[in-house]
Amino acid sequence: MFLDRFFRAKRNLPTQKLSKVKAVVMDVDGILTDCRIWLDSDGEWRRAFTVRDGIGIKRLGKAGYKIGWITGSKAADIRKRAEMLGVDFLSDGQEDKTDAFKSFLEKFQLKAEEVAYIGDDLPDVPLLQQAGFAATVPEAVDEVLATVEYITKEIGGNGAARELCEIVLQHGFYREQV
Amino acid sequence: MFLDRFFRAKRNLPTQKLSKVKAVVMDVDGILTDCRIWLDSDGEWRRAFTVRDGIGIKRLGKAGYKIGWITGSKAADIRKRAEMLGVDFLSDGQEDKTDAFKSFLEKFQLKAEEVAYIGDDLPDVPLLQQAGFAATVPEAVDEVLATVEYITKEIGGNGAARELCEIVLQHGFYREQV
Amino acid sequence: MFLDRFFRAKRNLPTQKLSKVKAVVMDVDGILTDCRIWLDSDGEWRRAFTVRDGIGIKRLGKAGYKIGWITGSKAADIRKRAEMLGVDFLSDGQEDKTDAFKSFLEKFQLKAEEVAYIGDDLPDVPLLQQAGFAATVPEAVDEVLATVEYITKEIGGNGAARELCEIVLQHGFYREQV
Amino acid sequence: MFLDRFFRAKRNLPTQKLSKVKAVVMDVDGILTDCRIWLDSDGEWRRAFTVRDGIGIKRLGKAGYKIGWITGSKAADIRKRAEMLGVDFLSDGQEDKTDAFKSFLEKFQLKAEEVAYIGDDLPDVPLLQQAGFAATVPEAVDEVLATVEYITKEIGGNGAARELCEIVLQHGFYREQV
Repeated sequence: MFLDRFFRAKRNLPTQKLSKVKAVVMDVDGILTDCRIWLDSDGEWRRAFTVRDGIGIKRLGKAGYKIGWITGSKAADIRKRAEMLGVDFLSDGQEDKTDAFKSFLEKFQLKAEEVAYIGDDLPDVPLLQQAGFAATVPEAVDEVLATVEYITKEIGGNGAARELCEIVLQHGFYREQV
Repeated sequence: MFLDRFFRAKRNLPTQKLSKVKAVVMDVDGILTDCRIWLDSDGEWRRAFTVRDGIGIKRLGKAGYKIGWITGSKAADIRKRAEMLGVDFLSDGQEDKTDAFKSFLEKFQLKAEEVAYIGDDLPDVPLLQQAGFAATVPEAVDEVLATVEYITKEIGGNGAARELCEIVLQHGFYREQV
Repeated sequence: MFLDRFFRAKRNLPTQKLSKVKAVVMDVDGILTDCRIWLDSDGEWRRAFTVRDGIGIKRLGKAGYKIGWITGSKAADIRKRAEMLGVDFLSDGQEDKTDAFKSFLEKFQLKAEEVAYIGDDLPDVPLLQQAGFAATVPEAVDEVLATVEYITKEIGGNGAARELCEIVLQHGFYREQV
Repeated sequence: MFLDRFFRAKRNLPTQKLSKVKAVVMDVDGILTDCRIWLDSDGEWRRAFTVRDGIGIKRLGKAGYKIGWITGSKAADIRKRAEMLGVDFLSDGQEDKTDAFKSFLEKFQLKAEEVAYIGDDLPDVPLLQQAGFAATVPEAVDEVLATVEYITKEIGGNGAARELCEIVLQHGFYREQV
């Protein structure tokens, strides 16, 4: 990734808005992964997840947050990983993500402003605009970088999702008592 | 990749020439991938593609551009990925790429100057010399770096192809109306 | 990984404490790997190990040190790699690592202060606090970075474990005679 | 890899010695790869090679140079890749590499000073000491970094081998006429 990305940081942590966050919704490819996919011998496309992200997601779930993954891809590894981590809502295989986001909000009776959303590409823009807290990775496309209020220090598939989990654990609605 | 590569940028965007571009032709290994290949249990060599590059290629196709992939490798994952993204022309398994490029031009009745080409190694040099807009990745071999007029900010397999897609979408023949 | 991590080094080498070290215990994901896991066609999650780390671990074993791996994951590749390298003790699949560490100490009749421990995430903190020498990788979570006395120069899965092996070979109980 | 490695360069190109080089012998893991290995579903350990390295090795072969790979690993992907690239000599599965190097020299009736050798770890040190031109990658272990006269700009598995190929093509015994 081009080095100058590291220097155009957006590190706004609007504590007021974050204090309302009860759910975290994530795009998968590029956020929970480094955006790479490869074909496996069984004809499925694979991607690599990060154990450290998984620990963050499990902590969020235990703290009371609802977790959603909304991805344009449809793949066995995404489904299996979501199951392992106790992800509450998975929408896959739909290029347009707005319906899935609506379903998520309805299912858990949440308002968009109660959701922290992280995504890296054009299909994520409408959701980032609605969410209470909008984040992305430094290697996201320009339209996304311009939309969010927070750009993670870590890159996708290597700690970005965990970074968001820690922010929500610290500042969100179910924030840990000190 | 050696850090000094980031400092020998070529960022020429010849808008006159780009405004004639109706097609984008890409080398695969090193451009759509990080150049790595590995053997799978079925005896096939695999490589990792990037979801973000895929979104850019699909956008190019929808905008009216013809897409060609010309690669010296012959592999099931390249064919399958090309199909998924609606690539219009795929030539694989030929070390010499000049015939394939000629076939591409004939098939779509295009002139070389109407093509943006991106490649990273010696077999790409003749095509880079003919193309209307010639690009490469910062980790390309020296002969290629010397030939092109644009070196992407992003590396191969991690956004370089998407970067070219965005340039063509913005400046090419079918450029989006503002 | 965010670049500033490289500048918050902790490079304490307490030679007195290191001279008592007779064993090295390691977390697996994030230390012996870059923390990434992917699903294989046989339904198993895989990760990549580093040959250079393996050479360091074998050298430790030959020098007389006991080697333990304590991991929350349960996977065939971890078991197979541990076997290849002559790892003396493997505990896998337990989220809480304190029992496993106790078993390790009992099995080899060692005190915690005779162990060098390296780990990168929250489950490692209690072990890092007990160990005679506590290390981590620069991309570890904040709680771990705050606990250790040594942060490796190399990252997980790319030399961090080898770096610790070399430190112990040079300064540990069975240190090589010059 | 720790950033300071990029600043402790050794870039000696002893043209006198290089002009005698008729063969290139390479370690595999860490040189032709990034040192990572993973278990595949068929029980084999895999690693990723680079297409750009392959093009360099084939060019060396065409120019008249003998190519040898000497590796402590024993794996199907190494054998298959060596075959694809026309590698003239492959020794695998032996931890001690000195016998293999001797066999290579005898087979092609070469003197050690006519060989360029590249390796990254302790088993490579005796061969690096004998070779006419000794190179390594910036992430090599300290003993190796101290032994060689050339440290590649590119890292292992991402262009280091190609960099050596280009040096030999330009300065070696069968150097291309300008």
